[in-house]
Amino acid sequence: MSQPVLIAGQWIASKGDRTFQAVNPATCESLADKFPVSPWAEVEQAIHAAANASAAMRGWPGERFARFLERYADRIEARSEELIELAHTETALPKQPRLKDAELPRTTNQLRQAASAARAGSWTQPTIDTKANIRAMFGPIGPVAVFGPNNFPFAFNSAAGGDFAAAIAAGNPVIAKGHSSHPATTRVFAEEALQAIRETEMPPALVQLIYRTSHEDGAKLVGHRLMGATGYTGARHAGLVLKEAADRAGKPIYLELSSINPVVVLPGALEERMDAIVTEFSSSCLMGTGQFCTNPGLVILLAGPKTETFIQAVGQKFGESPVGTMLGEGVQKSFASAIDTITKAGAKIVAGGAVGGGRGYCYQNTLLRVDGDHFLENSEALQTEAFGNGSLFVVASSVDQMAAVIEHLEGNLTGTFYSATTGADDDAYDRLAPAVRTKVGRLLNDKMPTGVAVSPAMNHGGPFPATGHPGFTAVGIPAAIHRFGMLQCYDGIRPHRLPELLQNRNPGSVFRLVDGRWTTDDIA
Amino acid sequence: MSQPVLIAGQWIASKGDRTFQAVNPATCESLADKFPVSPWAEVEQAIHAAANASAAMRGWPGERFARFLERYADRIEARSEELIELAHTETALPKQPRLKDAELPRTTNQLRQAASAARAGSWTQPTIDTKANIRAMFGPIGPVAVFGPNNFPFAFNSAAGGDFAAAIAAGNPVIAKGHSSHPATTRVFAEEALQAIRETEMPPALVQLIYRTSHEDGAKLVGHRLMGATGYTGARHAGLVLKEAADRAGKPIYLELSSINPVVVLPGALEERMDAIVTEFSSSCLMGTGQFCTNPGLVILLAGPKTETFIQAVGQKFGESPVGTMLGEGVQKSFASAIDTITKAGAKIVAGGAVGGGRGYCYQNTLLRVDGDHFLENSEALQTEAFGNGSLFVVASSVDQMAAVIEHLEGNLTGTFYSATTGADDDAYDRLAPAVRTKVGRLLNDKMPTGVAVSPAMNHGGPFPATGHPGFTAVGIPAAIHRFGMLQCYDGIRPHRLPELLQNRNPGSVFRLVDGRWTTDDIA
Repeated sequence: MSQPVLIAGQWIASKGDRTFQAVNPATCESLADKFPVSPWAEVEQAIHAAANASAAMRGWPGERFARFLERYADRIEARSEELIELAHTETALPKQPRLKDAELPRTTNQLRQAASAARAGSWTQPTIDTKANIRAMFGPIGPVAVFGPNNFPFAFNSAAGGDFAAAIAAGNPVIAKGHSSHPATTRVFAEEALQAIRETEMPPALVQLIYRTSHEDGAKLVGHRLMGATGYTGARHAGLVLKEAADRAGKPIYLELSSINPVVVLPGALEERMDAIVTEFSSSCLMGTGQFCTNPGLVILLAGPKTETFIQAVGQKFGESPVGTMLGEGVQKSFASAIDTITKAGAKIVAGGAVGGGRGYCYQNTLLRVDGDHFLENSEALQTEAFGNGSLFVVASSVDQMAAVIEHLEGNLTGTFYSATTGADDDAYDRLAPAVRTKVGRLLNDKMPTGVAVSPAMNHGGPFPATGHPGFTAVGIPAAIHRFGMLQCYDGIRPHRLPELLQNRNPGSVFRLVDGRWTTDDIA
Repeated sequence: MSQPVLIAGQWIASKGDRTFQAVNPATCESLADKFPVSPWAEVEQAIHAAANASAAMRGWPGERFARFLERYADRIEARSEELIELAHTETALPKQPRLKDAELPRTTNQLRQAASAARAGSWTQPTIDTKANIRAMFGPIGPVAVFGPNNFPFAFNSAAGGDFAAAIAAGNPVIAKGHSSHPATTRVFAEEALQAIRETEMPPALVQLIYRTSHEDGAKLVGHRLMGATGYTGARHAGLVLKEAADRAGKPIYLELSSINPVVVLPGALEERMDAIVTEFSSSCLMGTGQFCTNPGLVILLAGPKTETFIQAVGQKFGESPVGTMLGEGVQKSFASAIDTITKAGAKIVAGGAVGGGRGYCYQNTLLRVDGDHFLENSEALQTEAFGNGSLFVVASSVDQMAAVIEHLEGNLTGTFYSATTGADDDAYDRLAPAVRTKVGRLLNDKMPTGVAVSPAMNHGGPFPATGHPGFTAVGIPAAIHRFGMLQCYDGIRPHRLPELLQNRNPGSVFRLVDGRWTTDDIA
């Protein structure tokens, strides 16, 4: 008997005849629970239930969604011990500090920030032209499918993470497609979501959960005429299949696909504070066994003795550092295959380079190097994402060649510069940074990109293939909520029929763009 | 000898061996000038020149783009007589009031509004988190290809219209793909753009012009790795080919494809002011020979004697009204084919229904009707866009059936309600309007949708297939500019390296979202 799926407010037995089990990555052993692969009829049932919920919620005030999100956050905290235990078993991520002290609070914090934004309505950007009597704001886009990744069982969970919170805050129901690596964790989230739905009297289909579908059915889901949009975080190949299906149907899909996060270390910085940079880089690159979207996977350096010392020191650090457990066999295999591709493309191994070195699924901490000439000849293969505890150092012969390397970069989530505090690197910075700026969503100075603060100014996004559209961020409230809104204009609508946020009286203290000025005032 | 193309600041002879000529729609005769179909090498040359221009302009202040746009607007005005003459010959649109008094001023107004937004930087939405020292704003996305439509030779021209103005205001070069129906008009715009480029010392490739390419090369253009984004307004089929190519490459493409703009006329409104509605509807539907994206192509009515009177009256008005000239043979053929599809799907002809009735390419003013049962059985075919002087009336048997008809609607740019001023229709409105709201970008009360004000609160957009993404508008400043921006975050960037708009001192009086509050203040 497999675990039930959550459809239209009921935990029901799946009609699928195929099941799967999660695996404990630290022991490589399958876990007991069997989870169903849902057949299309089940997915379609969820879509129709979501569409009905969406219709039932038309015109609902943000307050309703805020209450649900807050109640849900409370319930998650009340059940946090079980969640931490399950996620640890399913992902091998450390319980402390990672799951308990970092990721779980981040998750409930995101839900509460999303609740605040829903309540205030700030994310809707009310815009009023009093002279023409045209008024506009963002409103819900319709049912949202969320495909969560393997590497954040809480903070990006399909039934509790950032995309989930944003989609609900915008007033949409969510169909969560749980990641196969942590289904039990996702089930507990969905259980609590359902309770929160009941307690706050939301439509039962506000949150639904299926664990797995065929690739074909996943594509049908994201392109279905009743769906509003999709959020996907995960591997590039699977994401592109969904993107094609959604694009063909004209349904927005927001993807976070791959990123190698170039770090440019300028020579003056190495001159000035090499040891600190060795430590910062190694910690950032090996933390969480390197399984972060913003892991620094490519470092661009200028050839010279200091750079050689730096490479040696990082190589040594990689050799000495404990090897973490990866999230699963798939991650280990992909990482091994990427290292293979990169070495075949001309990179040399400085440290690591083989499976093993730790517990369960693992691969040695791996440092690779290649010179600028080789990189320019083979830049596509050398930008293969190695998702895990590894990085490729590109040693350029001149600042000109560093610039050429940068011009060959694909789109990334982040780009980082380390430079001398004395100004010694400023010419090189001024030359190189504007080019990196156009290739990345977030530009950093003097710190590693692995921290992604939940800030209104954050951009966890970037040009393709990092994401599907460089104008949106997956982290940061209220910006992340916009992805799940549609622009709704009211032209000459009778006053009493306008949404509260667009009426002359400002219903709260929400900022509105009135005749070109942002104000919290009423309209006279 | 064919007309030259504008590449990298030079008017050069095209290397293409194929040419085309525009046709005067009023006489059905070809015009003298021959225009080239550019081969791929020429398109590629334009892409590389645009990419270089884009790189050269990195970090430039909005002031530079504002000066260019304003100078260009002045030059257009100075040459307006010639433009009006050419556009009239190429499109058969009336010189007055349409081209001279409405469309040309609208075009220069858009350019100047875009200039203001570029100068102020208001469109960049600077967002600052002082505590975390994370700052973000929108910046240029890269070279933009603009494909203009046939129906607005000025206001949506690929080298002067709304998409053009928005792309430049965001700091991007434009590759204009002129519409084949008005190439000479577009050439004059590009001549003036080049002069304005020289006078304001912008990169020569800021504006380039090609007149036509093969479909394959158009697809290669929008998906090219050096391109930033594409704006397309035109027929659905051609747009979807470009969309697929751009989507596959992960390049944003903004499309305006098709819309039938449902109008719901509730019974109390007919009771109260039938004559006025007959006049308003007929003028709106026949104006410009119905060749507007927001033409009211579908009217939903409740069965009854008043509705029969209304249909008869509109039919009579259509029969009495002069038949306008269409933009070309293609428009006439598409319109005839759409009317054929709609009648085959069960609609009956009330008025018109045949080619002719006016001068040049034309088709009788055509009114069709179908009952709600037939519509629900065949809703896809009955939503075929008939771009021109026609409309389909759907007569529903009950408010329930009106609701069902609305649930079957595809995405549209606009949705309109006429209702009694007494409140007699309010129950029906409250029932139906929320459903229409989710299907359209702009909701209207008591007026026809054909007017599209250039207002910050305008939404000229809507769910697919009206456009490719329901979160963006093609008209309205600053919102339309966002389409051509990428989100750029600065995380821990040294203060002197920040863009001026993100530094602690507010460089002008631009509104910035600082720690959750929109303000024009400096940061302490």
